[in-house]
Amino acid sequence: MIELSSDVFPAADTPDTDKQRLRLWLRLLKVSRMIEAELRERLRVQYKSTLPRFDVLAALYRQDNGLKMSELSAALMVSNGNVTGIIERLVGEALVERAPIPNDRRAMRVRLTKKGRTEFAQMALVHQGWVSELLDGIEAEDAALVCSLLDVKILGDNSPARGD
Amino acid sequence: MIELSSDVFPAADTPDTDKQRLRLWLRLLKVSRMIEAELRERLRVQYKSTLPRFDVLAALYRQDNGLKMSELSAALMVSNGNVTGIIERLVGEALVERAPIPNDRRAMRVRLTKKGRTEFAQMALVHQGWVSELLDGIEAEDAALVCSLLDVKILGDNSPARGD
Repeated sequence: MIELSSDVFPAADTPDTDKQRLRLWLRLLKVSRMIEAELRERLRVQYKSTLPRFDVLAALYRQDNGLKMSELSAALMVSNGNVTGIIERLVGEALVERAPIPNDRRAMRVRLTKKGRTEFAQMALVHQGWVSELLDGIEAEDAALVCSLLDVKILGDNSPARGD
Repeated sequence: MIELSSDVFPAADTPDTDKQRLRLWLRLLKVSRMIEAELRERLRVQYKSTLPRFDVLAALYRQDNGLKMSELSAALMVSNGNVTGIIERLVGEALVERAPIPNDRRAMRVRLTKKGRTEFAQMALVHQGWVSELLDGIEAEDAALVCSLLDVKILGDNSPARGD
């Protein structure tokens, strides 16, 4: 991959801060693309799985009581994959089940089954090991530092995710 | 957007470094998704343009002599958009031209026209302003620090981009 460095752009007389932030953005984009591509490939090869599916399982894993479909979509980090289709398949594999919502006869929650919870826990641990390997050069303190520096409110954290 | 924090994952007895790197990865993913979505939207609204198209122009902008199509694909940061189709449209708008390669009668380079160079320079400056605005909370020194901390050789910088 050829590096797209900030000198692509006409420096002209923009302040140094603008240029440094652009450099940072291009770095974030590059690093996240590379890691994502690698994780995608490993999920495919080792689990015959996908990033959207992993993402759905991860979102459900943290909610013992499950999520409404609308909440699930909002909770996803990665993809605009076909959430309904993914859930259908997970239900078919007995990894996810639907549960009624008290006092709301029309709506259902989806949640992990015990089997789903056990299988995802194992996969998440492997995934964590992959990420650690891919970020091998970064010490724990530096990782924490970058996290805190990037903990900016970008356009407000609650801005709705935009469609494509 | 609900934050997917690292406590989603079974902490168990993995070392602190693994957990911090996972936290960092989730942060990188979230920030880059949010910025990318916003840039995509602004390009659409203000330029009736797209991120893949911007990416193609940016890659050509830094190469006065243009690029072969294969080199262009390798240079792209962002997308798996239809590069050939994008180039066709840019040629139609007189922003890009094809040029023969000396001693290689079969291959062509694509490069920006003078008009393309002028128009992209303006757009790139606006884009830089957007990025700076989106990363508003990050000072220049901190941006430089994060860049250097993330300057890791992830799987080797020259690993070929993987397909989906």
